[in-house]
This record gives sequence, C-alpha cells and structure tokens, in this order.
Amino acid sequence: MSLHIDLNADLGESFGHYTIGSDKRMLELVSSANIACGFHAGDPLVALHTTAQAAKYNVRIGAHPGYRDLAGFGRRAMNYDQETLRAEIIYQIGALQAAAQAAHARVEYVKPHGALYNTIAHDEYQAHAVIEAILAVDPTLKLMALAGSPIVHWARTAGLSVIQEAFADRAYTDQATLVPRSQPGSVHHDPNIAAAQALAFARNEEITTITGKKITIEADSICVHGDNEAALTLVQHIITTLDHHDIAIRP
Amino acid sequence: MSLHIDLNADLGESFGHYTIGSDKRMLELVSSANIACGFHAGDPLVALHTTAQAAKYNVRIGAHPGYRDLAGFGRRAMNYDQETLRAEIIYQIGALQAAAQAAHARVEYVKPHGALYNTIAHDEYQAHAVIEAILAVDPTLKLMALAGSPIVHWARTAGLSVIQEAFADRAYTDQATLVPRSQPGSVHHDPNIAAAQALAFARNEEITTITGKKITIEADSICVHGDNEAALTLVQHIITTLDHHDIAIRP
Amino acid sequence: MSLHIDLNADLGESFGHYTIGSDKRMLELVSSANIACGFHAGDPLVALHTTAQAAKYNVRIGAHPGYRDLAGFGRRAMNYDQETLRAEIIYQIGALQAAAQAAHARVEYVKPHGALYNTIAHDEYQAHAVIEAILAVDPTLKLMALAGSPIVHWARTAGLSVIQEAFADRAYTDQATLVPRSQPGSVHHDPNIAAAQALAFARNEEITTITGKKITIEADSICVHGDNEAALTLVQHIITTLDHHDIAIRP
Amino acid sequence: MSLHIDLNADLGESFGHYTIGSDKRMLELVSSANIACGFHAGDPLVALHTTAQAAKYNVRIGAHPGYRDLAGFGRRAMNYDQETLRAEIIYQIGALQAAAQAAHARVEYVKPHGALYNTIAHDEYQAHAVIEAILAVDPTLKLMALAGSPIVHWARTAGLSVIQEAFADRAYTDQATLVPRSQPGSVHHDPNIAAAQALAFARNEEITTITGKKITIEADSICVHGDNEAALTLVQHIITTLDHHDIAIRP
Repeated sequence: MSLHIDLNADLGESFGHYTIGSDKRMLELVSSANIACGFHAGDPLVALHTTAQAAKYNVRIGAHPGYRDLAGFGRRAMNYDQETLRAEIIYQIGALQAAAQAAHARVEYVKPHGALYNTIAHDEYQAHAVIEAILAVDPTLKLMALAGSPIVHWARTAGLSVIQEAFADRAYTDQATLVPRSQPGSVHHDPNIAAAQALAFARNEEITTITGKKITIEADSICVHGDNEAALTLVQHIITTLDHHDIAIRP
Repeated sequence: MSLHIDLNADLGESFGHYTIGSDKRMLELVSSANIACGFHAGDPLVALHTTAQAAKYNVRIGAHPGYRDLAGFGRRAMNYDQETLRAEIIYQIGALQAAAQAAHARVEYVKPHGALYNTIAHDEYQAHAVIEAILAVDPTLKLMALAGSPIVHWARTAGLSVIQEAFADRAYTDQATLVPRSQPGSVHHDPNIAAAQALAFARNEEITTITGKKITIEADSICVHGDNEAALTLVQHIITTLDHHDIAIRP
Repeated sequence: MSLHIDLNADLGESFGHYTIGSDKRMLELVSSANIACGFHAGDPLVALHTTAQAAKYNVRIGAHPGYRDLAGFGRRAMNYDQETLRAEIIYQIGALQAAAQAAHARVEYVKPHGALYNTIAHDEYQAHAVIEAILAVDPTLKLMALAGSPIVHWARTAGLSVIQEAFADRAYTDQATLVPRSQPGSVHHDPNIAAAQALAFARNEEITTITGKKITIEADSICVHGDNEAALTLVQHIITTLDHHDIAIRP
Repeated sequence: MSLHIDLNADLGESFGHYTIGSDKRMLELVSSANIACGFHAGDPLVALHTTAQAAKYNVRIGAHPGYRDLAGFGRRAMNYDQETLRAEIIYQIGALQAAAQAAHARVEYVKPHGALYNTIAHDEYQAHAVIEAILAVDPTLKLMALAGSPIVHWARTAGLSVIQEAFADRAYTDQATLVPRSQPGSVHHDPNIAAAQALAFARNEEITTITGKKITIEADSICVHGDNEAALTLVQHIITTLDHHDIAIRP
C-alpha cells in the first residue's frame, strides 16, 4: 500500500488574444486540472484545447466555474441571487462537459473559482446554489472545496462527494482556516516550508499553525500554481519532496 | 395515416433585466423550441427556465447557438475562423444540454441563429465548423437548416440528420432561396397567403415564387415568430388553417 | 418668487435589440434625465439618441454610471477596488459627454446607478472613488445623491455641488433613510400619499416617517420611474399635484 | 531645417487580469500612442494609466477605437450598420478623452483598430461612420489612416486632417497597397530592409514594391509594434537608422 495525494491547478484561463499561465508545463506536473469555463476567464476554444490536452496527459478534468466577471477575473465578491447562481453553474459545467465530450474525456469534479470559492466555503446561501447546480447536472460529479470548511459538510449532507483541498504555501490559523493574505506570515515564501506542509498533508500529519499550534488538515488535494517561474519552481520542489518520500501524485 | 408538420420558434431570448418575446404563449402553439444559448441572446437562468417550460409543454428542445455578439443580437455577419466557431458551438450546445438535464429533458436538435444561420446555409467554411461541432458533442443531434440550401447536403454527407426549415411568410425565388428582405414583396403580409404557403409545405405541394413560377420546397418544419401581436395572430391563423385540413403540429 | 423642484428619471437603459422604458413619454414629464452609460445598461447608440432627445426636450442631462454588470443590471453589490471604480466612472462620464457633444448639449451632473448608488451613500471607500472621478473629469459636474446621506457631506467637502435626491413613493425611517424594500410599508402604493410626500419635499415641509414621526428631508430633486403604466400614472399625479400648488418642475 | 517622422504604436491593450504588450518600453521609443478604448481591448483603468504615462513621456495621445469584439481582439470583419458604428466611435473617443482629461492631457487623433482600420481604408459606408463620429465629437481631432487609401480623400473632403500611416516591415504592391499577409514576401523579416523602408518614408524617397517597381508613399507616421523582443529590436533598429541620418522622431 502506498501513499498518494492529488495536485490540482487552475488552467485554461487564457482568453481570446490574451494568453496567461503555463498550461502545458503544468499538465506535466499536476494530476487534476481545474479548467475555466468562460465566465471569469477562459473561452470556448481555450476550454476545448485545455480539456483535450488534459485528456492527453491523463490529468483529471474539473470544471472551474466562476462569477460572471471577466473584467475582475472572478475575484470580486458579488451579491448573487441563488437561482441565477445555480443557473450559471449549471451552464458552465455543461459547456465544459461538451468540451470534454469533444475530447472523448469527461468532467469528474467541480471547483468553483476565486471569490465564489471563498464565499461558498462559509456562506450557506451561495453554497447551496452551487451544490444544487452540481446535483442537477450530474450527482456523481465531485465538489472540490476548502478542506475543513462548512461547505464540505453541506455538500456531503446533500449527497455529493467532496475533494478536500489544502494549500501548501499558505499559513493556517488555529481554527484550520487560511490566514488572510493581508496578514503578515500568511504566505510561506520558503519552498522548504511549503514542501514540508505538502508532505504533512499527504501523510495526514500535523502542520504548524501561525501561532505555533499543531493541527491536522484532512486534505485530498493540494492546490498549486503556474503563474510564474517562482510558482513553477515551488511545484517542482513539492513534487520532488513528495517523490522522495514515495508519495505518488494522483487523484 | 395523417399529415403533420413541425412549427418552430426562437425562444429564451430574454437577457438579465431585459425581457422579450411571448415565450409562454408560443410554447402553447409550437412543437419545437429553439432556445438561445447566451451568446447572441438569452442567459443561463432564462435558458434553464425555458428548457423547463418547453419540457412541461412537451415541446421539442433545440439549442439555438449564435455568434458571440449580444450587442448585435447575432444578426451581424462576422468573419470567424473555423476552430473558434466550432468551439463556440460545442460550448453553447453543452450549456443548453446541462440546462435540459436539470429539467430532466434533452436537446434534440441544433438550429443556428441569425447571421450564422444565413451564412452557413451556403458558406462551406463556417458550415463545416457547425457540422463538426454537432458531431463532436452528439452525432444523434439533428441540424435544423434552410430547406434546399447547400448545408443540407453537407450535413447529411457528414452523417447528420437534417430538419429542413421553410418560411410561411417569406416569398421564395425561382431557385428556392428566400427573397432578401430588402426587396419588395419579400414578406407575405397577408396572413391568408402565409397560411396557404404553410399548408403547401405541409402537404408537399407547390408554392408560387415571386415571379409566379411553381416550385416545391421540401419542408420538415415551419418557422414562426412571437415578437408581437401581429406575429402571434399569424401563428394562430396558420395553426387554424393546418388544423382545418387535418394536419397535426408535431416534430 | 416661485417654488420649484426637479424631477429626475433613469433613461436610456435599452441595449441593442432589447428595448425597455418609456423614454419618450418620460422626457415630456421630467426635468432631469439620468442617462445610462453602457456598463449596467444602455449602449452607445441608445446613449446618443437619448442625449439628443433630452436636449430637444430641454431636459437636463446627467451621466448615470453603474457597475460593470450588464447581466445584473448594476443591481448587485460588488467588491470594487477604488482605482478601478474611479477609472470606470471617468470612462462612463467621458463616453456620455461625447454623446452629449454630438447633440450640441452637455452633461451637467452625475447620478450613480443601483447598487453603486446605494453603496456610496454610506461607504466612504467607494464614495471617494466616485467623487474623485467626477473631480478628475470636470469639477463643475454636480453629484446627485441620496438626500441626507453621508456622501452629501463627503462630496461637498471635496468641492462638488450636490443635488440631493428624495423619493416620493418610499417611506422614510426616523433617521431619514429609506425603509428597506424588504420591510412592510416601505413603498407608498397610494398615489395620493406619494404626491403629498413630493409636495412636502418641494415646499421643504415635514414628512411622516414609518413610525409616525415628523422629519424634514432637504430635497433638490425627486426620483420618478417610467417602467410601466402604473409608474407613469404616478408621475403624472405628482406633476398635477405640484402644478396645482404652483410648483414648477425644473432643475 | 531638419527632417522628422512620427512613430506610432498600439498601446493600452491589457484587460483586467490580462497583461500584454511592453507599454512602458514603447513609450520611451515612439512619438504617438494609439490607446485602446475598451471595445476590442483595454479597459478603463488601463486607459487611464496609459494616457497618464503617455502624457508623462510627452507622447502624443490617440484614441484607438475598434469593433465591439473583445473575444476577437477587433480583428474580425463585422457587418456594422452605420449609425451603430458612428455611435460606438463617439463613445470610445469620449471615454478616452475623459481619461486624458484626468491626466491633464488631451486626445489629438483617432486611429481605428484592426478589422475596422482595414475596412474603412476602402469601404465608404463604414468610413463615413468613423469620419462623422470624429466630426461630431471634435473636428480638430486628426484621423490616422492607411497612407494612400481612399479614406484619406474622404476624410479630407469632410474637413478632417489626416495623418498618413505607412508600414516599415510590410511589402507594398505596385498600387501602393499592402501585400496581404497570406502572400509570400508580405513581411520584411530583415530589420535592415525594414529600417531602409522607414528611412525612405521619412525622406519621402521611393521604396521598392514586391515586383521590384519603385513607388513613393506619402507617410506622416510609421507603425511599429512591441509585442515581443523581435518587434522591440526592430523598433530600436529603425530608430538608430533614422537617428544616424539626422531624422527626428516626433509627430
């Protein structure tokens, strides 16, 4: 029996003439791809290419829906009514399912993006819109959500499987929530600390919170980024560390 | 054995705060609903409601994709490259499929909208983008296209079933194409003439072209509109006429 | 010397193929037109037509900028950063100024729309973005804002003239704020009560709050709507009442 | 008396989270900045920053309006009606004028973008929409257009000053039009040839067409790009060449 953990990354965020990310390199590193669905980022052609590439690299495909806010990259909190949000998530999942279908692949999970991700972690009103959208399209789709947050419970109660996600390069509070980026010490800039935290997640071992306390985060997947060279280096360092401890990268 | 013909209408074209059309009344009249997919008109919530309503009224559901041009309602010719167009059609079909899935219904055909509809009738480059998009998502989806136009042949050659569509209130040329709206006599304003032409389509009888010649249009479906009271009156007149001649309205 | 008060309405909210409002009839009734700038509603052609019509009817022209949220009609609270909001307000004012210029007219004031209007009434962060945007484009532009709200003070301190706006058909709290629409009694459905409240604003007399207390609202302009026949009837009733008491409708 | 020529570049094309171009470096090199207005590229904040930077570098500011097609970067031909196009150009110029006003600068010319630029060079219908838009906003604004193309004449007849633009790295036909990019030899990949052609423009000397014929292009400005390192190197090579021949870079 061997240990393993999933690495996921946001991909397919380019739009029209605008190219961002290192999608091809990331697909060689991660085991799950959160593919943008065109509302906060991405477009139909990018979604099609990215699902096809993910399928080719044998990377698990997730729909990555967001708020309808391309100008803000889905990072701005928005006061949605529940039925509009539910409808937009259904729409975005469906669009990505068709892209996956065209690549003879399939969407296996849904990871909401940015401000939507943060809001639904604790806001029951918007959380239920997302949960019900997934149930309406395909109840076998998993939800990827912040490890230990209330939505994990709400989604499971509603019948969804949940992939709990943790962050290697972010400091945690004693309550197992992320230290807000605005606070000092919120980000682990030292790759060794980030890799050690990733290793702890994979082994289900304790991590050290920002106050020095020991807590355990139940994590199925670790979020990584490919925005720049430093981020790519960190991913590789995490992978090397996991590999050195015989931990496989897979869903 | 009884004669029958399909009546189809563009529905689900409202957007956000903007409401247009008489969707509810039209769903009581037609047998096929072309539901906008959010690119030229419609939005996720409208698509969800409209598919659910169509399912409730037992009206056949079609995806109605268009150019990415909400400001122009998809009525402006655009110079698309083939792979972008193919991807956008895949995306729009998928989005509507998920909406249909949420209503425990399914999309059965695809009718492109406006400038896209007119362009692909004769433009092989864009036509193939649409045909290949449908094949990539689900080859059992039918294509609704202009009766007698080249795309009917291209689509059938590629393996798609085609629903040939004719227009009751439009005059035809001797070559069986529509007389452009810019020309005098292009529209039958007299409901009796429009109803008579609909009857001829249903019975597979000859119609009279703008020059007075007799031609036959092979039509599976007749396009009707619900934009205003006059349009609704015309639909009812056509239905009454067909009914009077024992012709059923169904796909 | 005669009493007078301004009546203002949101106009130019149609978009592309989507037409809403009774702009032509409203321009015959009001003295100030808040013209949408294309972000939450409106489009360049509608803005151009509406400014030209307003100029023709000798109605004062105001820019009516909103959040970048056409799908939500600018009615959803959004978490903007200050410099983006400032830039978007500058952009929208400039776009409407050019439309006014094409009609040989000029923009005289700025009234933010919907969720933006409500937020800046009390949120200093977003309020300052709007105030600084106006100052950057033209410090002689007035700001139309909720009568008695904190932004009135902030704007005046920054050097802007403020048009204080009151609502004839809305109940007020003892603190001179609007009773939220979610509460019973928030809207005066009786046209006589609304007209009486408008009259009180014009004469600078006391109005009765929802608890029965008497307060005075300092109002320069009264907001009216033309969304439907009932709204139009209310406007006409208010005008008749004001006219009967020799109160002129003008800025 | 010294020779001089203008160098212009498309700037301010970033959008929200998406950054493209080398705007800062280009502002040190060119004498005119065509700043995107948010329809085909750019956004209000980018426009504001770019106009402020251009003013700081003493670079002439031009509005760079395009088709309403962010997904296609304004590079797709679109079938616009004249009054919509006129209104959109008025809107975009106004938006950039306000951005310039906020930077205590002013817009001095208008250079349409991409497919719009190419279409109006020879299509009188769309050309007049653009010309009339400029006249409606400010008849002292210059139009930057393809040197020798029909719009130069139409614009001058209508009373506009025209900045004739030529391309250093593009081959010309014997009729003084650009060799389409689809044809071999259309682009001068050799920096020396491009620089020599720029020099010929600046000195009003003959250039060699693709067939080897000698023609003269009357050019007031040369278009350069900063999309990548090769493009930047070419700009610097052109500037060095012009400088070596005592030709100043200025409007």
